[in-house]
Amino acid sequence: MQTALSQYEQMRAMDTLAVRRQIRNGEYSGHTAGLAKGKLQANLAILPEAYALDFARFCQRNPKPCPIVGISETGAPQMHTLGAIDIRTDVPRYNVYRDGILDQTVSQISEVWRDDLVGFALGCSFTFEHALLSAGIPLRHIEANKTVPMYRTSVATAPAGPFGGGLVVSMRAMKRAEVRVAIDICRRYPHAHGTPIHFGDPAQIGIDDLAKPDWGDESKMERDDVPVFWACGVTPQNAIMRARLPFFISHTPGCMLITDVAEDSEVPVLS
Amino acid sequence: MQTALSQYEQMRAMDTLAVRRQIRNGEYSGHTAGLAKGKLQANLAILPEAYALDFARFCQRNPKPCPIVGISETGAPQMHTLGAIDIRTDVPRYNVYRDGILDQTVSQISEVWRDDLVGFALGCSFTFEHALLSAGIPLRHIEANKTVPMYRTSVATAPAGPFGGGLVVSMRAMKRAEVRVAIDICRRYPHAHGTPIHFGDPAQIGIDDLAKPDWGDESKMERDDVPVFWACGVTPQNAIMRARLPFFISHTPGCMLITDVAEDSEVPVLS
Repeated sequence: MQTALSQYEQMRAMDTLAVRRQIRNGEYSGHTAGLAKGKLQANLAILPEAYALDFARFCQRNPKPCPIVGISETGAPQMHTLGAIDIRTDVPRYNVYRDGILDQTVSQISEVWRDDLVGFALGCSFTFEHALLSAGIPLRHIEANKTVPMYRTSVATAPAGPFGGGLVVSMRAMKRAEVRVAIDICRRYPHAHGTPIHFGDPAQIGIDDLAKPDWGDESKMERDDVPVFWACGVTPQNAIMRARLPFFISHTPGCMLITDVAEDSEVPVLS
Repeated sequence: MQTALSQYEQMRAMDTLAVRRQIRNGEYSGHTAGLAKGKLQANLAILPEAYALDFARFCQRNPKPCPIVGISETGAPQMHTLGAIDIRTDVPRYNVYRDGILDQTVSQISEVWRDDLVGFALGCSFTFEHALLSAGIPLRHIEANKTVPMYRTSVATAPAGPFGGGLVVSMRAMKRAEVRVAIDICRRYPHAHGTPIHFGDPAQIGIDDLAKPDWGDESKMERDDVPVFWACGVTPQNAIMRARLPFFISHTPGCMLITDVAEDSEVPVLS
């Protein structure tokens, strides 16, 4: 752990290009939270072109869980509008799925890359978490060095082709007075899930027990805390799993694609 | 003109459903500015599925001129996330292009509809114009009852497949003190072209003569007016024309698709 921690601390001090070089060279396979400060990070979903138009439709119809920030050419691993990126090597760790089942976790996907693959980059919660922290709103899971709790809900997504299923949310607890501030801040980040979809009673969105998240860790609730729920990037992953595509690659949770775009950029393209 | 004017005045007093019924029944084929107040209106581009993924990429890479607010299923003319819409009948007038050339202007497209067509709805400038007017910023072309001037620029779009070419902008002139206010207002409307791409010297974006717009009418400039330029929905139309698709349908300029989504909605889907 000593070594891993100090490598992460070294990575935190690096600029975006240096961070990406470490990842590209296979020298870092950890999570990307807190790295390349100020740069937009993204979920990555890579799937065969035959499913790409339906997946684009699914994301367009569900912009809060699935904010598209990049789409690659078919078979080409670059994403020019997001930076000097090669999606085969620039994510620390990938999950490779076959017939809807996790088959491998790997640090690069050059060997399994195919000419019919299309990469989708989708905005992630790191962006608004940075903004909330900067505004002085503490985040319980970060203070506890844990993963944010995520839950299945009774809220349906708008389907497209084989993609559909329920909305997955992440939960951050905060004081009631902070909720309005958080909403106003998150409205500025449509490419990072935007405003919360709900706050208060979890049962209203079909969550029975906050102490039992479907993904991530249980989060400490302080006295008078209100649970606040954001649409989560697990939603599209789940939709893809549910569609049982013959082949699909994603980043592993927390190990995101780091772009060259500023996270407060009005549009998710280099200017 | 008496009759046309009074029909438009009648339409202005109607709610969204009544406006759409008039259009759907072929009883109104005029422009939609000022109709269905408060509802998001959209440019419409309908093209064969073979080009749809590349067009989605083009729009994603050029979000200011091409903010996607809806994508239909292939062959299905509904757009459920935008309302009870049938894109074959719910636009007042359509332009039908064959091999890149305007072939027909019609009030509905049921006869030319095909099973391989995909409709894209793209946000339009009416949304931010309403917001600017509400904030007390006068718009010269509206005061003069003219079409906003539009110009080709030297700014390139990010290409995708056969789609590319230059950015087209619209120009609105205003007092220098109003420019900052306008920028702050437009930042709230990412689905309606967002903030201006430029203000001041037209030559910096390759416009030689403001008095000679490439589309629309010359706009009066008052003393001390600053020209302010927004990315324009003619950009994707131009990109499609340039790609010389065998078949393509668009709304005719000013005759937009009226949706059921509020124009100040955070995301361009019904909630």
